[in-house]
Amino acid sequence: MKLNDSQLATPWTLARRMDRMNFSAIRELLKLSDRPGIISFAGGLPSPKAFPVEEIAAACAKVLRDDASSALQYASTEGFLPLREAVTRMLPWPVDPAQVLITNGSQQALDLVAKMLIDPGSKLLVEMPTYLGALQSFAPLEPEVVAVGNDADGVDLDDLSRKAPGARFFYVLPNFQNPTGKTMGEAKRTELIARTAEAGLPLLEDNPYGDVWFDTPPPPPLAARNPDNVLYMGSFSKVLSPGIRMGFLVSPPAVSAKLVQLKQASDVHSPIFNQRMVAEVIKDGFLDRHVPKIRALYKAQRDAMLAALERELGGLGASWNKPDGGMFLWVRLPEGVDASALLPKAVDNGVAFVPGAPFYASDPDPRAMRLSFVTASVAQIDTGIAALGATLRQVLAR
Amino acid sequence: MKLNDSQLATPWTLARRMDRMNFSAIRELLKLSDRPGIISFAGGLPSPKAFPVEEIAAACAKVLRDDASSALQYASTEGFLPLREAVTRMLPWPVDPAQVLITNGSQQALDLVAKMLIDPGSKLLVEMPTYLGALQSFAPLEPEVVAVGNDADGVDLDDLSRKAPGARFFYVLPNFQNPTGKTMGEAKRTELIARTAEAGLPLLEDNPYGDVWFDTPPPPPLAARNPDNVLYMGSFSKVLSPGIRMGFLVSPPAVSAKLVQLKQASDVHSPIFNQRMVAEVIKDGFLDRHVPKIRALYKAQRDAMLAALERELGGLGASWNKPDGGMFLWVRLPEGVDASALLPKAVDNGVAFVPGAPFYASDPDPRAMRLSFVTASVAQIDTGIAALGATLRQVLAR
Repeated sequence: MKLNDSQLATPWTLARRMDRMNFSAIRELLKLSDRPGIISFAGGLPSPKAFPVEEIAAACAKVLRDDASSALQYASTEGFLPLREAVTRMLPWPVDPAQVLITNGSQQALDLVAKMLIDPGSKLLVEMPTYLGALQSFAPLEPEVVAVGNDADGVDLDDLSRKAPGARFFYVLPNFQNPTGKTMGEAKRTELIARTAEAGLPLLEDNPYGDVWFDTPPPPPLAARNPDNVLYMGSFSKVLSPGIRMGFLVSPPAVSAKLVQLKQASDVHSPIFNQRMVAEVIKDGFLDRHVPKIRALYKAQRDAMLAALERELGGLGASWNKPDGGMFLWVRLPEGVDASALLPKAVDNGVAFVPGAPFYASDPDPRAMRLSFVTASVAQIDTGIAALGATLRQVLAR
Repeated sequence: MKLNDSQLATPWTLARRMDRMNFSAIRELLKLSDRPGIISFAGGLPSPKAFPVEEIAAACAKVLRDDASSALQYASTEGFLPLREAVTRMLPWPVDPAQVLITNGSQQALDLVAKMLIDPGSKLLVEMPTYLGALQSFAPLEPEVVAVGNDADGVDLDDLSRKAPGARFFYVLPNFQNPTGKTMGEAKRTELIARTAEAGLPLLEDNPYGDVWFDTPPPPPLAARNPDNVLYMGSFSKVLSPGIRMGFLVSPPAVSAKLVQLKQASDVHSPIFNQRMVAEVIKDGFLDRHVPKIRALYKAQRDAMLAALERELGGLGASWNKPDGGMFLWVRLPEGVDASALLPKAVDNGVAFVPGAPFYASDPDPRAMRLSFVTASVAQIDTGIAALGATLRQVLAR
């Protein structure tokens, strides 16, 4: 692509892929929610109350006191071995540390997998809707992204089987999905594994929220059921801190070395200081003590949001789900109400959300919206959902 | 590409680009130098003596004490504004903070630029030899990499002019180049800027070592001379710590937003905790006090290596340069001696280096080797170069 008229004085010829990198719509929408005084259900920002600040501070000090020469030096691309070993112990299936690659959050794992598996025009399958950030990661590799339909219970497996031939992989978020908050049940997981094994369709399983369940843990990951067929992504963003950018990618041994080569070319390695700090924080079972507090906090906020939705939006023709964990719930507005059109009005009333449309690879549902229940406090949730209800009533009254 | 026979049970079809991602040769060579007791001139590891451990520890504590909620949260893709502002003040030409993107070391800047500018088959120009990590970053985008020849004074500008038509950019390291340690003089910079402006050939200027000069600063960067035609990469790896993975990319306004989109898709943002820590460390002119110590340390080690080379390799038919800064010097072995073949013998004698061949996009010089003078102490340099001389004499005696 050539740059536009106002930039013709420049010599830059951009790669063809840049035609697909136009996310400005959603960026502009989200900037609305940055206005002071707006209660935002838009971002997926974990509650700062969930950050173990004291433990992180102590770990930083200890790492620098004990071994600054290594903690501040270049390090291996694969990642800090004790951290990779700790990751293997967090997983409910047998994994060798050589299969674990430490990444800059799980977003970078998406980038590496996309580079490894996508040629221009490659078909890949995603849920409908799916995580917007994954669509953004895949886009530069110029794939043909095909959305798999839903039935009442989640992924429509017959549609998946129809679309599987020739696809490089199916990207799936089984636990408390972003954006819908839905969880794939045990029976569907079993059937999905059987069908994809039969079809020779690899899976890319994204599980950033799996530990943040409210009443009972979700069923075991897909990767635990057929490890050679699944790339599995996890993250410390929701259980420790997103600002330290620590995630991981677990791969079948057949492709682990390829991912290390891609990581090396991308940024040599993730910050070893951060890796050592995380390894220090989580040793001795810290997450077993810390994560239950996050679960309780977010469960209370989910309950507050559900109660507020019932109180403020009940009877207006909207519907929503009750997530069993994670950070998001999914609202369907009354017929004729477009979430993108509603947003500026909601912001005028002091509340923000994300319209659902950008999460669809195709055939967006204009009535859908995503609400995060983790960033705002219970009091803010009450105020914000009341403002959302008022906005909706204004629109319906016209 | 399909995986090989031993992996046929897997369903993975890899992208075509993976055929180009075979760096195992250099990785295997470098593993040799990991053996205990080996004095290594191979890696580009800054001296741990140059790490400001106390200042980093104090900054970590302060950042977490003052504003942990922000330091551990998701943050903007562009990077921490006070850090971007600090970067603009480090540069000798007018730059707006909106032109600065914080990256995971400058290696990630290479990855982002490659994504922005390279289509499969795009021609791009590099020096001969050039930084191996850049070749690795460009490879996944499937370019046609064309090496520009050298004359006595560095880049052969006539060859550059001949090869410029149709090239997406010329990647150049003007200061204390990796691998050769050479610096481009003032006259050549002026002429290079004139020729590339005329040809409409963009430049990608990589300057990780520019602050680490020994007697006098190098001439001003290419970007300072024609900012709209140059993407400029810098790093905190050599002046603070490589293990925190902090670099930056300065771009002409015409393409800054495109790079932010690519960064967002790659890993959302660089660790904000690390960014705030670096901003805290470098405020109040810390680098003005700290970097002179690094210069003095590395100059003494360069001098020790030059003296040892003269003492141990003098008269054997080898030649080498005297770098004015940076981390590396470049040795040409006597005629008939292959650096890759010499390496295992040198390791047997307790010393390691990197053969020069992998740094060439084409037509490698088998007699070239790269020596780092920054990791080993003066005493280790004396011992290691003596071992290298002994190895060379053994080989020549056969």
